[in-house]
Amino acid sequence: MWRDLLPVGRAASGGYRRFAWTGADAECRAWFREQAQSRGLLYEEDRNGNQWAWTATGPDAVVIGSHLDSVPDGGAYDGPLGVVSSFAALDMLRERGEEPTRPLGIVNFGDEEGARFNVACVGSRLTAGVLTPDQARALKDADGVFLGDAMERAGFDPAAIGPDPERLGRIAAFVELHVEQGRDLVHRDRAVGVASAIWPHGRWRFDFRGEANHAGTTRLEDRRDPMLTYANTVLAARKKAHLAGALATFGKVDARPGAANAIASEVHGWLDARAADEQTLDEVVGEIIRTATERGERDAVCVQVARESYTPIVEFAAPLRDRIAKRLGGAPILPTGAGHDAGILSAHVPTAMVFVRNPTGVSHSPAESAEMVDCLAGVAALADVVTDLTSEDAV
Amino acid sequence: MWRDLLPVGRAASGGYRRFAWTGADAECRAWFREQAQSRGLLYEEDRNGNQWAWTATGPDAVVIGSHLDSVPDGGAYDGPLGVVSSFAALDMLRERGEEPTRPLGIVNFGDEEGARFNVACVGSRLTAGVLTPDQARALKDADGVFLGDAMERAGFDPAAIGPDPERLGRIAAFVELHVEQGRDLVHRDRAVGVASAIWPHGRWRFDFRGEANHAGTTRLEDRRDPMLTYANTVLAARKKAHLAGALATFGKVDARPGAANAIASEVHGWLDARAADEQTLDEVVGEIIRTATERGERDAVCVQVARESYTPIVEFAAPLRDRIAKRLGGAPILPTGAGHDAGILSAHVPTAMVFVRNPTGVSHSPAESAEMVDCLAGVAALADVVTDLTSEDAV
Repeated sequence: MWRDLLPVGRAASGGYRRFAWTGADAECRAWFREQAQSRGLLYEEDRNGNQWAWTATGPDAVVIGSHLDSVPDGGAYDGPLGVVSSFAALDMLRERGEEPTRPLGIVNFGDEEGARFNVACVGSRLTAGVLTPDQARALKDADGVFLGDAMERAGFDPAAIGPDPERLGRIAAFVELHVEQGRDLVHRDRAVGVASAIWPHGRWRFDFRGEANHAGTTRLEDRRDPMLTYANTVLAARKKAHLAGALATFGKVDARPGAANAIASEVHGWLDARAADEQTLDEVVGEIIRTATERGERDAVCVQVARESYTPIVEFAAPLRDRIAKRLGGAPILPTGAGHDAGILSAHVPTAMVFVRNPTGVSHSPAESAEMVDCLAGVAALADVVTDLTSEDAV
Repeated sequence: MWRDLLPVGRAASGGYRRFAWTGADAECRAWFREQAQSRGLLYEEDRNGNQWAWTATGPDAVVIGSHLDSVPDGGAYDGPLGVVSSFAALDMLRERGEEPTRPLGIVNFGDEEGARFNVACVGSRLTAGVLTPDQARALKDADGVFLGDAMERAGFDPAAIGPDPERLGRIAAFVELHVEQGRDLVHRDRAVGVASAIWPHGRWRFDFRGEANHAGTTRLEDRRDPMLTYANTVLAARKKAHLAGALATFGKVDARPGAANAIASEVHGWLDARAADEQTLDEVVGEIIRTATERGERDAVCVQVARESYTPIVEFAAPLRDRIAKRLGGAPILPTGAGHDAGILSAHVPTAMVFVRNPTGVSHSPAESAEMVDCLAGVAALADVVTDLTSEDAV
């Protein structure tokens, strides 16, 4: 099953490019449909582009699954591991002779990575009503194609997208299995863990404005070089994050005019920052901004900061989380810094996440990996969780 | 005269865009021809695209002039001040009743800035034979237009370009007047100075290679973030240059994949470095590379450095330089970090440069400026130098 999916959207680098509503995405979706139908499951696509496979219809359903799209040059596991493991868990239950007593659903959420339209979790956000149909239809990809047009070409009616509370109301619990994006399980020597929370995170654009001048004739003391202020801010961000146990990253930078023999007139840098709680996050970002401003005064560079996005903390439902951890023999409970469809759904449905060990910790890269034995442990864990959650006394 | 030239190639920013062999350049060249003809000078274009205006033909000529093209968003003075001042100096000599006794030439060198084809001083380099015709014809602009085709459209025969030793052999001295690109004359409180040398300078590409990873999930201690190594190198370059009295600038940077939520896999930065002598330059660059490599080891980032260009020191002929400084009442002698046609010619012809004070020191920017009174002092200085150099005992 896994083997059929592996070549789809694969580049020469070994990385994947499965952007929403492209040919590679359609192939992944065809694969999902085939998996559902070959198991005799009820297959449906909802109006927001999510795919569902059901053992039965009705309320109080337990849903497992994840997504099949990828970031540019992404790894094989982020997303697909959760979908493949869901089908494999169902196979395992059937081999054990345990057809679930409640409706069991397997889901592939559309456009989770947001790689094409720059908004993540579009399928789950639309369903939960946190992204409005108008906001979604206004999204454009790098070629200027609107999300609505891309969905229409893929066979959907863009006028029909929007909140789907009736569907969410039928779900008693959602569990997303995902490859760990870090090495917490490696350090704990465990194959499987359970999510406690998704760290609050945000993105800030730093604009450093100085003065363009000739790199070969302008005395150092006469310069207003924004590259210096930027560089100092990059190092300060790392230091402040380290001291607070938080994360801070500058991964994108734009210097103008961008000539090798001219002092830049302006440098724009994007800070991604995350922390275990919102207070720590705000403090770390505040200190980075303060340091940037102070250094800017020294460099005669004007510093402006705009918050481009901010996602508050997501804490997964404690009873469900603890029940799953107990069922999995005291699996460790760990936070994550990454956003997921599970994070979107958790405000509407009791939601949990199961992580599978990632030896390198690398994610969003072709080097992302998981050992086969750990993947099988993940499938077994998911099967056990389904057995538990579909039992009489469950959620 | 100056007034006619001011609107040509001017953008809304107040900056100039006069790229070689474009419409704006053609207008500037038409202006030059008109100035030459209105003064009864012998006008000619050589086969390398340089314009000349002569009082008489023959050997032992004294030549003054500069260039009319500009960098993108350049200032009004870099280049044009030297050409305008040359015509004005001739007018002043004639008003004084002093028609030069030797042939006096005024030159506009073609394509000095290299803004379009990325090689500076094409007109003088071709004439001096330091750029071969094949190398020149292989140059392409950002739209893929070859230099040869651009020259052909402007009325030149690209097959005819190349060394012109006969022409250089007729020149006894070349003096280029230029707006100062720095504030040395401001600090010395002088309107006019004389060049000692053009600092040796070069460009080095630094490749920092780490590992792309998720900005939200990768622990700081597990990262191989090349942005940190880059940032540290930017600050180290400034510090090393400061300690050595040299110049070092990172004005261009490229981070990949360049996603705000991903640790960069690689960062490329371009170092422009200049110093008064080659040993100092080599030492400063060596220390910057050493610091980058050491920090790279700490960050688990691989650092590679490639020298993309290197121009040795140009020392202007001492007898000519000292004679001019003396004639100008002990004008200060100062080095410059910028390349010029005078730097190219100095290996073939006794060459000197006269600088005019620039209040802001800013160059290659619309903020570039010179006071009218200083410009007139420059014209008078140039006229005096021509009188001196065309006297009996001169060069």
